[in-house]
Amino acid sequence: MHNPSQQNFIQQLSIDCVIFGYHAKQLQVLVNKLNFKGNFQALPGGFVYQNEDIDKAANRILQERTGLSNIYLDQFYVFGSASRNNLDFIDELIASNPQMSVGSKQDKEEYDWFTKRFISIGYYALVDINKVVPQKTDLDESIQWYNIKDLPAMIIDHNIIVAKALDSLRLNLDEKLLAFNLLSETFTMKEAQELYESIFDKPFARNNFQKKILDLNVLERLEKKFTGAANKAPFLYRIKK
Amino acid sequence: MHNPSQQNFIQQLSIDCVIFGYHAKQLQVLVNKLNFKGNFQALPGGFVYQNEDIDKAANRILQERTGLSNIYLDQFYVFGSASRNNLDFIDELIASNPQMSVGSKQDKEEYDWFTKRFISIGYYALVDINKVVPQKTDLDESIQWYNIKDLPAMIIDHNIIVAKALDSLRLNLDEKLLAFNLLSETFTMKEAQELYESIFDKPFARNNFQKKILDLNVLERLEKKFTGAANKAPFLYRIKK
Repeated sequence: MHNPSQQNFIQQLSIDCVIFGYHAKQLQVLVNKLNFKGNFQALPGGFVYQNEDIDKAANRILQERTGLSNIYLDQFYVFGSASRNNLDFIDELIASNPQMSVGSKQDKEEYDWFTKRFISIGYYALVDINKVVPQKTDLDESIQWYNIKDLPAMIIDHNIIVAKALDSLRLNLDEKLLAFNLLSETFTMKEAQELYESIFDKPFARNNFQKKILDLNVLERLEKKFTGAANKAPFLYRIKK
Repeated sequence: MHNPSQQNFIQQLSIDCVIFGYHAKQLQVLVNKLNFKGNFQALPGGFVYQNEDIDKAANRILQERTGLSNIYLDQFYVFGSASRNNLDFIDELIASNPQMSVGSKQDKEEYDWFTKRFISIGYYALVDINKVVPQKTDLDESIQWYNIKDLPAMIIDHNIIVAKALDSLRLNLDEKLLAFNLLSETFTMKEAQELYESIFDKPFARNNFQKKILDLNVLERLEKKFTGAANKAPFLYRIKK
């Protein structure tokens, strides 16, 4: 079992990150498959060192998996049900990986540490997917983007964590101007509309959408996008500096 | 020192509650003065039992101070700076209350437990102030409402916690229809406007405000309020069932 350096971490506290990207007109989430026998898929997560700010811990976890250090991220919810623990997951993991059976005193201590109730702070991160090369850690067999509508079953409550992150993303999208973190630096109105449609999983009327977005009063219009057909070329937009 | 039954609580985790009420056209916050020599003011707070959901812990803490069991409350932020601890506060408390000096082994254990780094989950609660009779616990010398613009200096980062709660209240006010938890069951448009003005600390234009609130599409108009001057009587509103 991976040694969590138990004494250096805050006990019973974890961080789970929902990393959102946008590709092929669909919202995507980064998921890693754990490096054990069996199909254990999980959100990028980790623990908080005794001398580490929780936001820095989240940034560290994000940087490990994305290579990016200046990612937009927000705390969105604390998962703190009394029944929330790793017990079933760890027991299943050990069953599929008998070499991990709890033998030595150190194994036993690690097992006890991991299988206690954990309170997890959820962060969502928003990235320009073109800038990310997903990176696996020692814990991962692989890591990849999944369409949010086609996520694998993940360990513990990680599928519920994604659902709650999506709720928060929708709730704060305009107030915090979140959507534009998922687009390239410049984008057309149609691309912005398609992103909104994927986030809310419903169509928007074109004129209403354009008015709503321009009313946020944060976009500047650039030159027309070059498409070859000049009079049909759409305008490009970007966030005002 | 109050015995925190250390073994039954999750270590290094606390809950702090910002209880908002509304009175005399001003937002109010419930603050308790700790039952020690010296002027130690604090937000109602506490710890989480090993077998207790964090939301239930917050409800328990709220019920202790307000007597109400069905209060609207939301997690709003986790205060998790690495430097966040009770060390200065507890040392100051002991300096003012020499009978509490750390003598016995048990005192020492409690001192160590309390003065570690604490991560605190912030909850805001919204109450109809007319329904609350503030109740002090064994820990409190007194408890009272303070105008948010006239809060005392509180221990640790509690003044910052209130500021952050107010930010969240403003951000989510309309999406989550929060304001109406602070009003009586029925209210006039003028009363709702005055509440909004106190939350945002700025005036609203009467016509714009009325349109904005009615556009939320959650209010029903009742009979006119009886004032004696029939033609000037304002309508009463309440949230649709």
